Parts: sequence; C-alpha cells; structure tokens
Amino acid sequence: MHHAEHTVTVDAPVDLVWEVLVDVEGYPAIFPPTQGVEILQSRPGQQIVRLDVEVNGEIVSWTSQRDIDAERRVIAYRQLETAPIVQHMAGDWRAFPFGPDRTQLVLTHDFAARVPPGGQLDLEQADRMLLAAVERNSTADIEAVKGEAERRVGVAVAS
Amino acid sequence: MHHAEHTVTVDAPVDLVWEVLVDVEGYPAIFPPTQGVEILQSRPGQQIVRLDVEVNGEIVSWTSQRDIDAERRVIAYRQLETAPIVQHMAGDWRAFPFGPDRTQLVLTHDFAARVPPGGQLDLEQADRMLLAAVERNSTADIEAVKGEAERRVGVAVAS
Repeated sequence: MHHAEHTVTVDAPVDLVWEVLVDVEGYPAIFPPTQGVEILQSRPGQQIVRLDVEVNGEIVSWTSQRDIDAERRVIAYRQLETAPIVQHMAGDWRAFPFGPDRTQLVLTHDFAARVPPGGQLDLEQADRMLLAAVERNSTADIEAVKGEAERRVGVAVAS
Repeated sequence: MHHAEHTVTVDAPVDLVWEVLVDVEGYPAIFPPTQGVEILQSRPGQQIVRLDVEVNGEIVSWTSQRDIDAERRVIAYRQLETAPIVQHMAGDWRAFPFGPDRTQLVLTHDFAARVPPGGQLDLEQADRMLLAAVERNSTADIEAVKGEAERRVGVAVAS
C-alpha cells in the first residue's frame, strides 16, 4: 500500500475552498479529465457518486463514497468499485484555515495497484503506472481547486 | 523563482510538533545532515542562526533568519547568507492542528539558484541541482520532524 500527501496554499478563505470541494457536481467544470458525475446516493455527511474520467484517451468509471465532515472540513473518499488497475484507492481532501484569507489545501491518497484483466501488464507495471498517475493527478487536482477558489475570490471582490 | 510545498500527517498533537520546530538547537539531533547550529541573535519572535550542513560530503554553512509566530504556529525562514549555488532561499514551516492528536505539517520553499564561483556549473545545472536538493531534503526534513514528534508522544505515553 502506498501513501501520498500533496499540498498547496490557496489565496482564498477556507469557506470558499470548502464550497468548491463539497460541490461534486461541479467537478467536471474544474477537473478537465472528469467528464461526468452522477450522485447515486446522498444523505447528510455522505455521498455515493459515480465518476466518468478520461484516462489516456479512454473513459474510465468508478464509484466513490465521500464522507463529509463540514466541521473539520475533511472529505474522506473511498472507491467502492475501482478503476481497472486499482486494488484500493482512498484518502482525504483537507482544508485548513491559514489566516482569514488563505487556506492550506491537502489531498492524501492510500492506494494499491492490481493486475488488470487482459494480461497486458504485470503487478509491477500496474504499480508504476498507478504511482505516476497519482503523482500527476494530485498536482493537477489541488491546482484546479486552488484556481477555482481564487477565481471565486476575484468574482466576489468584483461584484 | 521556484515554489514548492511538502506535507505530512504527524500522529502527534500540534503543540508537540511546534516544540520540535522551534528548538533549532535540537536540529542536529533530528536532521542527520545538520552538523552544527549557532544562535547568533535571539529576541522574542525572531532568531538569527548559523547552520553547518553536510551537502555531498562537504560542510556548507549559511545564516538564516527565523520569524517565529507561535500563535499561528508558523516559522518563516530566510537565508541571509546563502550556500554556494543558492541565490534565494526562504519559506515556512507550518503546523496545523488536525484533531487533538494529529498535525498537518507543511514545509514550503521559495528559491532560486545562482552560478557558483569556480565556473564548474552553469545556471541551468545549478538550478537542476537545487531543485533536486529541495525535493530530497523537504521529504527528509518533514519525515524527521514527524519521527521526532511521534517519538515524544511515545515517551509521554510511557512516562
């Protein structure tokens, strides 16, 4: 099992960052590879969603449970049905207030690869691909949330 | 100018992590490359320190100003006299409480390289070396603080 943590400072108040994080239906607008989101179940503090994401030119789908702790501003996600090379994928989005106008945004991953059907990859290759994808996507995802939250600060200031 | 942020979750309360961060004279015991620390000036909220650090088998020294904000638990450091390939080096240590027993530890760097005396490296090579060193040292440094803070939790529980 691998563990990874990525972080970025966002020039936006924590409530604005949180607003971006909880709005899963807004993800296709801010994460370019995300093509579609369907909320399968929703109750206070928890969502089950299906995400359709473009990976290497193909649409891959998975189902995620999102446990939403608004007080601590933590969303713990866990893939219930995983993508082809994924054995396990879970982690947190965390938003920490850093003064009144800034936020420390953190994204963590706990993950393990598996051999995909078809016999084209062995476990070591799948593991290497998944490590690289998590590294690449983490940076893209935290930058996307940062960009959207900072854009909303601009809109709020201008209106 | 480059900007980098690294983070790790520490299984220790934020006050314990903060204790490790502010104790600059304890750095040689927790950061193996740090051979010596001398506090050149100390006043409330600020220290000027000289650090002797082993880099590629050689002892390199620099002087850092540390602005200590105990309320926000942020130490902003800035090299006053830089190491040979460093034009600019500054950043923060930040410790965020993540529940009562955990801490989100963040280390940031803002840095730029310069051509060192001697003509053995051009700016691009110096830049590449410095990027690699920051990446490597950031991971080592946050893991060292994590290790020491978690060791102290163990000691506190055992005593």
